[in-house]
Amino acid sequence: MTSSHNRESRLMQLFPIVGWLKSYTREEFNGDLFAGIITAILLVPQGIAYAILAGLPPQLGLYASILPPILYALFGTSRTLSVGPVSIAAIMIASALNAPQISALGDPIQSALILSAESGVVMLLMALLRMGGLVNFISHPVLTGFTSGAALLIIGSQLPQLFGIKMPSCGLDTGCYNAIFQTINIAAILIGFSALGLLIFFGKPMIFILKKANVSLSLVTAISKCGPLLTIILATLAVIYCHQQVAVVGSVPSGFPVLNITFGSIEKWRLLLPYSGFIALIAYVESVAIAKVTANLRGEKIAPNQELIALGAANLAAAISGGMPVAGGFSRTMVNFSAGARTQMAMLIAAGLLALAVIFFSPWFENIPKAALAAIILVAIIPLVKLNNIAVTWRYDRGDGIAEIATLLGVLVYGIEEGITLGIVLTLISHLRKTSKPHIAVVGRLPGSEHYRNIKRHRVETWPHLLLLRVDESITFANINYIEDFINAELRRQPGIKHIVLIFTSISDIDTTALEVLENLNHTLQALGMTLHISEAKGPVLDKLEKTDFIEQLKPGKVFFHTEDAVRELARP
Amino acid sequence: MTSSHNRESRLMQLFPIVGWLKSYTREEFNGDLFAGIITAILLVPQGIAYAILAGLPPQLGLYASILPPILYALFGTSRTLSVGPVSIAAIMIASALNAPQISALGDPIQSALILSAESGVVMLLMALLRMGGLVNFISHPVLTGFTSGAALLIIGSQLPQLFGIKMPSCGLDTGCYNAIFQTINIAAILIGFSALGLLIFFGKPMIFILKKANVSLSLVTAISKCGPLLTIILATLAVIYCHQQVAVVGSVPSGFPVLNITFGSIEKWRLLLPYSGFIALIAYVESVAIAKVTANLRGEKIAPNQELIALGAANLAAAISGGMPVAGGFSRTMVNFSAGARTQMAMLIAAGLLALAVIFFSPWFENIPKAALAAIILVAIIPLVKLNNIAVTWRYDRGDGIAEIATLLGVLVYGIEEGITLGIVLTLISHLRKTSKPHIAVVGRLPGSEHYRNIKRHRVETWPHLLLLRVDESITFANINYIEDFINAELRRQPGIKHIVLIFTSISDIDTTALEVLENLNHTLQALGMTLHISEAKGPVLDKLEKTDFIEQLKPGKVFFHTEDAVRELARP
Repeated sequence: MTSSHNRESRLMQLFPIVGWLKSYTREEFNGDLFAGIITAILLVPQGIAYAILAGLPPQLGLYASILPPILYALFGTSRTLSVGPVSIAAIMIASALNAPQISALGDPIQSALILSAESGVVMLLMALLRMGGLVNFISHPVLTGFTSGAALLIIGSQLPQLFGIKMPSCGLDTGCYNAIFQTINIAAILIGFSALGLLIFFGKPMIFILKKANVSLSLVTAISKCGPLLTIILATLAVIYCHQQVAVVGSVPSGFPVLNITFGSIEKWRLLLPYSGFIALIAYVESVAIAKVTANLRGEKIAPNQELIALGAANLAAAISGGMPVAGGFSRTMVNFSAGARTQMAMLIAAGLLALAVIFFSPWFENIPKAALAAIILVAIIPLVKLNNIAVTWRYDRGDGIAEIATLLGVLVYGIEEGITLGIVLTLISHLRKTSKPHIAVVGRLPGSEHYRNIKRHRVETWPHLLLLRVDESITFANINYIEDFINAELRRQPGIKHIVLIFTSISDIDTTALEVLENLNHTLQALGMTLHISEAKGPVLDKLEKTDFIEQLKPGKVFFHTEDAVRELARP
Repeated sequence: MTSSHNRESRLMQLFPIVGWLKSYTREEFNGDLFAGIITAILLVPQGIAYAILAGLPPQLGLYASILPPILYALFGTSRTLSVGPVSIAAIMIASALNAPQISALGDPIQSALILSAESGVVMLLMALLRMGGLVNFISHPVLTGFTSGAALLIIGSQLPQLFGIKMPSCGLDTGCYNAIFQTINIAAILIGFSALGLLIFFGKPMIFILKKANVSLSLVTAISKCGPLLTIILATLAVIYCHQQVAVVGSVPSGFPVLNITFGSIEKWRLLLPYSGFIALIAYVESVAIAKVTANLRGEKIAPNQELIALGAANLAAAISGGMPVAGGFSRTMVNFSAGARTQMAMLIAAGLLALAVIFFSPWFENIPKAALAAIILVAIIPLVKLNNIAVTWRYDRGDGIAEIATLLGVLVYGIEEGITLGIVLTLISHLRKTSKPHIAVVGRLPGSEHYRNIKRHRVETWPHLLLLRVDESITFANINYIEDFINAELRRQPGIKHIVLIFTSISDIDTTALEVLENLNHTLQALGMTLHISEAKGPVLDKLEKTDFIEQLKPGKVFFHTEDAVRELARP
């Protein structure tokens, strides 16, 4: 009975879908159906736009919206996360494909599929190593700085599209700017800015008007979220019927993607690996952050390590079904959530609709003008630029503020990968600084008791030749230098000390570096005529020390069970 | 009076030389003179050998032994550290100069001087940012793994020299190996292996024989340390008088180096910067480690930040006087120390002798055979390969053992810079893992008191709808997820909870990430009908929180001064 129960709970842990499918209700399905349709309507233009943003043909974004969300639905612990192409991953893919050593190898579609496969493998490896805690590697300020920087890069890349121009780098050559000005395409501008206006109108103004008109809330959601699709349809019709020369998406292969498992040279995999690693890291961290927001709102729980498995599987699915790398998208997830999605069934429905769109409507995508897609990207991306957040962070915590600005500038000045690296390094430095000063107390005995307390906070007995020190944290390479300095400073302050007792109550580990420093310290103290002792060491710590000859080296220093024993023996002058 | 005293102590802080020069004695000078001469005798062959190991002309090693140690003597806090060319830095320089993008720019001497200048600037910047604590960035196992790996690379690069052959990469082509075998130079082998034998004999066997013969200890030291110089002299004489064709050092410019301050293109500086950064980091970490060993033996003190200034100044001095990057050398420092050096005067004397050697004896260096230099490098480097250390570390701490092996393999398989990066990343991951789980206690009241203690260790009063939690560490991005999970698990265990009080006794900081997570948590708890409170927050933490609207968001949650106040108000059901 218990064993079958255990087996079931393990099954639900690996396939969270089993958990909600078992008790799936008609009411939940109604919510999911509506949310699935709305999300699908959003996914078609987003899929095409983000593929083009990544420098890829549109089908790589569409294919990435079919199989990957199905895999995520099977394995993922978030009930409302919408997995598919996302803007930040798209600009990271563009950065990888534009790197000289990558573009020299040719075939960008193959490179993009390798990125999908590799980031999937990286995530699964991270899951295997139980590195779900890696979300901690990037602090919020660094993540915000990175997202803002990447969003600014995307905006910079989309503005020329909106004006229908190709942007060479002109430097200080004014003639060059003049030439660009000549190429401005009036039709593209008209389409681009009309699209922008329509999208903005379909945001808050439309919701305001519909609410005034007492339209039901779900209908308001449905109508306002159709903005992007309607924009695309109108812009495409304008291109077709006005016979204007503007840049369009171009032909999209019809029908379902062919499953693909041939992937080019080992060398290409090697060169793309650093980019895949960064895409995996950012895709994972952003997805979990978004998943947590909606899960918290409903009191649900996200399991970070299981998310690595789900997102890894989704990216592998993207690779074999011809899709670009995927992650959880912020705006799409919020749309899905507010449209009433209750489970991942919504995403299964959306994936089904996308499959139908790819099979039956591909020819229709050919004449979508790029200027309209640029408008869609701009409207989706501008809220991600949170420059005011820098001021807030700066006021609250100077170190975090510096990290946020440095990461933002790193992305803008050096590039995507360099910006993330800088952010991670800054996070780790700040962490190291914060934790390298453990609390250390000089203690004495509470009169009439066997309790030992900080001499700064309590009236306690002390002995002039005996120093009792309690270190309140495990001793590692990161804090051993501080501890050594503390002991030396204390010895300079109290020149009469003959015995030093380190009280190990709070110490659950001593790493190799710390042990070596303690050995050297003991050696030095012995040379200066002092003896080092240990008291109250926990079993595992003693077991570890007994594997070495440290306890032997301490002699005549001893290992006491209680601090009281040490004091009884050593307090006599 | 006090102000002049302060000024003097600040002067001594910046120029530690003032400290010991003030009370310098005749007796100290005798020790320093002897040690200075011995170290100079060692420096000549080492300087030439390490320059050649780095792929540079010999004078770059000799020049690096003159001005840099003088600058270190002015600023350094170690009295016995011997600063100059070192083997590990030499192989790092070789790695930089052989990188395709660097070697494409040509002029390796200029590149080496840029490396000196840049690593000096990096160290001074680190000093300015007070990043002396950066020694903590590399744990001992990672440092040992790195050193062993680099030493193995050096051995691999020197063996062909010892056989007088040029080693192309043959792969599986046996004919190629045969061709190499044909080029083996018997004269070079004879010189190389005789040198090796002589050097080994001048180590322990010679000391043993001299001690047996009752020779005075300082004479034993003097004689045994002359091994390398004698080897070089004999090998050079063999080349000159036997007219054998073997690879030799070649012409060394005579006279003092010309001060040089022109340094090529910005682009070259940019490309070399990552290499300089790594050289600065390793040079600093290794130097401080060595300086600490000798300082501990004499009860002296090393100031890490001041060491950054001293080593930075020494490297800038190397750059402008035509020398390769410098650091504190392990074997040379131990020779200097055991020869009786008491202060940096010994290094000033050695530098003076090196200057004389460069001015008067340069032509003599021309015929030194490379095979003899290879023997000197091998004898100096073999003790740095500490493969048995891996087993020791592995037994003591599995995580440290894995880090040591990974770093060693990283250096051997991927290269110097990749190996260090891997080591640093592993160190930081292990650190993050160790500190991301802070101690959290559910507490209750000791009956009849106002003291609150861990419910697991004490018999205390608790209340069914009140959860009192004490977090025993500052709250940061690294541990906030663990804290959040802990609270959620506790709430699932005790479903009746209405009020949660976070006791902030041990918290001295809350960073931006932690604050955001706390805000979200509070939001979620309020939605579930629970209230979050804070008690015993320290002044600086409250000041920081008051810059935000967190305390406003908590309402009806409150900020209590004492936990007792919170219990009095909230314990009533």
